[in-house]
Amino acid sequence: MSAFQDLHVPGKPLLLPNVWDVAGARMLAGAGFAAVGTTSLGVAASEGLPDGEGAAVDATVRLVERLAPVGLLVTADIEGGSVEAAVAAAEAGAVGVNVEDGFGDPSVHARLVGDIKRAVPELFVNARTDTHWLRAGDVGEAVRRIRMYRDAGADGVFVPGVKAPHDIERVVAAVDVPVNVLALPGGPTAQQLGELGIARISLGSLLFRAALEAVVSTAQAVQRNLPLREDLPSYQDVNG
Amino acid sequence: MSAFQDLHVPGKPLLLPNVWDVAGARMLAGAGFAAVGTTSLGVAASEGLPDGEGAAVDATVRLVERLAPVGLLVTADIEGGSVEAAVAAAEAGAVGVNVEDGFGDPSVHARLVGDIKRAVPELFVNARTDTHWLRAGDVGEAVRRIRMYRDAGADGVFVPGVKAPHDIERVVAAVDVPVNVLALPGGPTAQQLGELGIARISLGSLLFRAALEAVVSTAQAVQRNLPLREDLPSYQDVNG
Repeated sequence: MSAFQDLHVPGKPLLLPNVWDVAGARMLAGAGFAAVGTTSLGVAASEGLPDGEGAAVDATVRLVERLAPVGLLVTADIEGGSVEAAVAAAEAGAVGVNVEDGFGDPSVHARLVGDIKRAVPELFVNARTDTHWLRAGDVGEAVRRIRMYRDAGADGVFVPGVKAPHDIERVVAAVDVPVNVLALPGGPTAQQLGELGIARISLGSLLFRAALEAVVSTAQAVQRNLPLREDLPSYQDVNG
Repeated sequence: MSAFQDLHVPGKPLLLPNVWDVAGARMLAGAGFAAVGTTSLGVAASEGLPDGEGAAVDATVRLVERLAPVGLLVTADIEGGSVEAAVAAAEAGAVGVNVEDGFGDPSVHARLVGDIKRAVPELFVNARTDTHWLRAGDVGEAVRRIRMYRDAGADGVFVPGVKAPHDIERVVAAVDVPVNVLALPGGPTAQQLGELGIARISLGSLLFRAALEAVVSTAQAVQRNLPLREDLPSYQDVNG
C-alpha cells in the first residue's frame, strides 16, 4: 500500500483540502495538512476557463508539477479523465487521480478506471460518480456504479453531493474500498462522516469560493473605510 | 487623457484592488470595480516563484491577456520593469504599468520611465520608489526620486509604505501628477487618503493574503467540525 492509500482509514477520514495554486498548498502544508487534492473549478476559473469541459486538465498537470517542491501528497482532479491524463499526472508527481463519470455510461467509465490502473498501477484511482452531483441523487444508482468501478480496480470511490446519513451509510456498505464524500453545508461534520464509515472527505471548491469571498469582502472593507485586518499572513509568510 | 487616467482624481482616489488570477478579477468586476492592478507577489507565489526577482513578469503578461474578456481596466506590476515588458503588457491589453526602483539608482530608473513613455506613449506609467517599502522611509529622498520620475514623463508616482499623514502630504505637494499609496493597517482610511490629496490607492498583496488566510481557516474549520459557511459564492457564481 502506498503512503497515500494508508491515509484512507474508514472511521478516521482523510480530510483533503482542494487547491488550485502553489501558494494555497504551501499554506495548507504549513498548517499541517499532509495531502491535498486539486480542484478543477479552481484551476479552470483562476485561468478564466469553464469547469467540467476538460479545459483545465493540462493546467492541472502543470499545477501538480509546480507543487512538487511543497512536499505534499497530491491527487489530481482530471475530470472525465483519460489514460493519457492519468499518466501525465503521475509523471508530474501525483499519487492519485479523480476520474468522474459525468453520469455517462458507467461501463465506459469502468473500462477507463481499469485502463488507468493497468497503465499506472501505483496511482490511487478514485472513481467518482455524478449521481448526486449532476442528478437528483439516486442512491441505488450510485451503489450500482461504484460497485462497477470498484470491480474495475478503483482504489476508492467518490460520491460528491450525497449528504443524508442513511444514504452515506448505504454507499459505505456497498463497497470494500475507501469511500469519499464532499463536506457540505448542512451535512454531517467531519467527525460524523467518520462515524458513518467515510474514509476521505474532500472540500471540492469550498476553499476556492472562500478565497474569492475574502477577495471581494476585503476590497469592499477598504472601500467602506473599515480598518484593515491585522490577522493576515505577512508578506514574508507567503513569499514562497 | 485615457479612461484610466481619468480615474485618478486627487481627493477622490481610485481604489485599485490587486489581482493574481482571472477568478478574483471577475468577482471584483461583479462587485463594481472598474480597474484592477496585478500583484507581483500573488502572481509569483501562486506559481511557486519568489517575488521581486522578475520571475513573475512573464506570468503577469499572460495574466493580463487572460483578463481581457473580463472587461476591466488593468495595470500591470512589471516589477523593476523594462521597455520590452511594458510593450508586452500593453500588447496584452494593459492600460498601465507599475515600475519600481528597488531603491536603486534613480537616474537609471528615470531613464527607463522615459524610454517606456516614448515606446508606448498611451500607457499610464506609474513610477514607484521603494524608499519606504525597502528602507526606513526618508520622505526627502522619496520626494527627490518622484520628482525625477515625473520629470522623465511618469504619469503617476507610487510610494508604497508611506503612512503618516504629514509624510503623505509632503509627497502629494511635491509633484503635479497623481500620487498613489498603499492602504496599510493602522494607516489612514480610503477617505482620509483622499483628504490628503491621494489620487490612487493600491491594495498590494492585501487581497492575496486575505485569500490565503481564508483557505487555511476554512480548511481548519472543517477539521474542527464547525458548520460550513453558507455565505460563500456558489459554484455557479464562480464558474467563469
